[in-house]
Amino acid sequence: MHPNNSTPPAEGCIDTEVVDGILLIGINRPAKRNGITPVMLRQLAEAYTRLDDDPALRVGLLYAVGEHFTGGMDLPALAEYQKRGERPVPRDQNLVEAHDLGLPGYRRRNKPVVAAVKGICFTVGVELMLAADMVVAADNCRFTQMEVGRGIMAAGGATMRMAQRCGPGNALRLLLTGVEFDSAEALRLNFVQKIVPAGMEFSEALSMARRIAEQAPLAVIATRLNLRKAIEEGPLAAVAEILEVQKRLSASEDAAEGRNSFIERRAPVFTGR
Amino acid sequence: MHPNNSTPPAEGCIDTEVVDGILLIGINRPAKRNGITPVMLRQLAEAYTRLDDDPALRVGLLYAVGEHFTGGMDLPALAEYQKRGERPVPRDQNLVEAHDLGLPGYRRRNKPVVAAVKGICFTVGVELMLAADMVVAADNCRFTQMEVGRGIMAAGGATMRMAQRCGPGNALRLLLTGVEFDSAEALRLNFVQKIVPAGMEFSEALSMARRIAEQAPLAVIATRLNLRKAIEEGPLAAVAEILEVQKRLSASEDAAEGRNSFIERRAPVFTGR
Amino acid sequence: MHPNNSTPPAEGCIDTEVVDGILLIGINRPAKRNGITPVMLRQLAEAYTRLDDDPALRVGLLYAVGEHFTGGMDLPALAEYQKRGERPVPRDQNLVEAHDLGLPGYRRRNKPVVAAVKGICFTVGVELMLAADMVVAADNCRFTQMEVGRGIMAAGGATMRMAQRCGPGNALRLLLTGVEFDSAEALRLNFVQKIVPAGMEFSEALSMARRIAEQAPLAVIATRLNLRKAIEEGPLAAVAEILEVQKRLSASEDAAEGRNSFIERRAPVFTGR
Repeated sequence: MHPNNSTPPAEGCIDTEVVDGILLIGINRPAKRNGITPVMLRQLAEAYTRLDDDPALRVGLLYAVGEHFTGGMDLPALAEYQKRGERPVPRDQNLVEAHDLGLPGYRRRNKPVVAAVKGICFTVGVELMLAADMVVAADNCRFTQMEVGRGIMAAGGATMRMAQRCGPGNALRLLLTGVEFDSAEALRLNFVQKIVPAGMEFSEALSMARRIAEQAPLAVIATRLNLRKAIEEGPLAAVAEILEVQKRLSASEDAAEGRNSFIERRAPVFTGR
Repeated sequence: MHPNNSTPPAEGCIDTEVVDGILLIGINRPAKRNGITPVMLRQLAEAYTRLDDDPALRVGLLYAVGEHFTGGMDLPALAEYQKRGERPVPRDQNLVEAHDLGLPGYRRRNKPVVAAVKGICFTVGVELMLAADMVVAADNCRFTQMEVGRGIMAAGGATMRMAQRCGPGNALRLLLTGVEFDSAEALRLNFVQKIVPAGMEFSEALSMARRIAEQAPLAVIATRLNLRKAIEEGPLAAVAEILEVQKRLSASEDAAEGRNSFIERRAPVFTGR
Repeated sequence: MHPNNSTPPAEGCIDTEVVDGILLIGINRPAKRNGITPVMLRQLAEAYTRLDDDPALRVGLLYAVGEHFTGGMDLPALAEYQKRGERPVPRDQNLVEAHDLGLPGYRRRNKPVVAAVKGICFTVGVELMLAADMVVAADNCRFTQMEVGRGIMAAGGATMRMAQRCGPGNALRLLLTGVEFDSAEALRLNFVQKIVPAGMEFSEALSMARRIAEQAPLAVIATRLNLRKAIEEGPLAAVAEILEVQKRLSASEDAAEGRNSFIERRAPVFTGR
């Protein structure tokens, strides 16, 4: 399938569309290499919030319209907002959840997101990718995290997430030199999970998202949150909740369906109950 | 050498045998692809407990009889136990130590374990492998962590251990899609340390275990526990104990033997004192 | 360029030299394969301290004179010191900062260090490399962390740093067997960031250091410290300071230079203010 995309206004937009329980989230401002404006940030936050709030949605798929994922934040547009003292995103939505940073006062994201990246993927593009749960990359990606060359810090999660994936040595090389890297290097550094020929990244990400959507939704969320707890609070905090979480899941209708479908040698049909 | 294996009862068993200070621990129920029963869980816990308690033992080697490591838990047999309100393993033994999870009330494991995996290695098989200290894999392995397809969570450590080895992106892909992966992928993800042609995994794991058994036992345990402390409590907690641990080790007979053998240009003979 | 090296005394020395804001730090005792003496430890601590204290310095480059990085500590010389109850390095200097361990009472290092390793790189050599921010390796390296074969523990950071880079399985294999590994394996394990033909490692490390020296100094330090906070205290502690750090950086002269140079399409010139 191909997503249905709108013709975006000058300040860009985020397209959303639901396919088989998957929320497609499209970054849409190709005339400006998908440079992200405050309006797009807000719409991105709304999409992530909707993903969590709608029980019919099981997984998100973040992708981009046009040749490139994103050239980064549209800094002049953002500066306008900040000059007026406005926040692009209210605290009860999860922009920061788009980045999944867990800042105090912001909502966290529960449901998984698959990202499909391609072409230019600079600064906030790398951080949106790292904040996703898993990533399919076209083979033509150009990544860079070059904030130190602008006098600022990468503030969207790269300082926390890169080293988790590739160790501090590789992470510091990227963060302190701002060097550009490609899809093969992103795979080697565990930033992306799969590389496909350019043009195939959306369909490959969709098939990954479909596979997640077929699993038991409560188990998917519980697994994701337990892994995140291990990362954020340490493995012992994650262990401490395992028996209780498993007991709750085992009592669900979906666990019964899991057992029955296994005995009956058929594919399970999960409801999220 | 080849381990001496018994003909197992229908519910399977864990074979143990000591070779040069190495405790061989064999999963033995090949007629059922080594599906793990409550009896086997208890015997596994007893083997790990013995490994720690017997001062003559320096390292364990976990392997499997037959073509496959394990197809996973024997869920019907386990459900029987749980229905009767029984625990397969008393709290003072280290079943959970087989998984090495550190649940409150369970003993932790101090001594290292090398695992040799081959063929089918599903669910708890992956988690036993991840709970080992290092792993040799046959080149024919089929791994999967597919609990979300049964409506439950992987509860034996995968949610804590996978991301430590390969980052959250790769870990979430395996955990949330349940996709099968092979030996080469397990090496790439740092789940296994070495791949050998099928049939060679036991002898390769044995030679790795022999090499550990030749090192100073107190230093091996202290090194292992300091690394684990860094993972569980953070690097600063691990740093805080280094000087004290090193002072204790430096005063040991084995440290003197280490110095003397170095000066005398001969192989050291360590006693664990 | 080639660094200017002195003819070292029998107990060795650490050569220092400044090139374009980069402090070259040379391990100089080639007659003894750069075996590190207490005097060299103290001079190494002084060099790292100077790197942090001199505002004109932006990055350090740790390299070795001769064919080898280091054969390890000169244990007899160190034992002499310890017998007399002396510490090689006062607490207000950062020897341990050379290792960057953050022991209580010792200063931490703020500025980044690039290491260039080659030839033999044993025990403390591996740990100095892991304590650097990024590493260029000659293709002829021989690494080993063999302390357990001497009855002691690797006490210079390997137990904390290896598993961060390559996961606990790979780390425990190296630490508990003391096996030797080469440059390609060090790259695979994320210990080094780049391999070059032997003889090229200094110039490659220098060009990496130059690239860091061109970035905004306050942003480089803030990025490095935020990444380290994430590793030491967890990602939530790092997130908690991001907005404040970014606000401070955004108000700096260098952030204005970053914006202006971007608009004017020229290379920025940063001052560290």
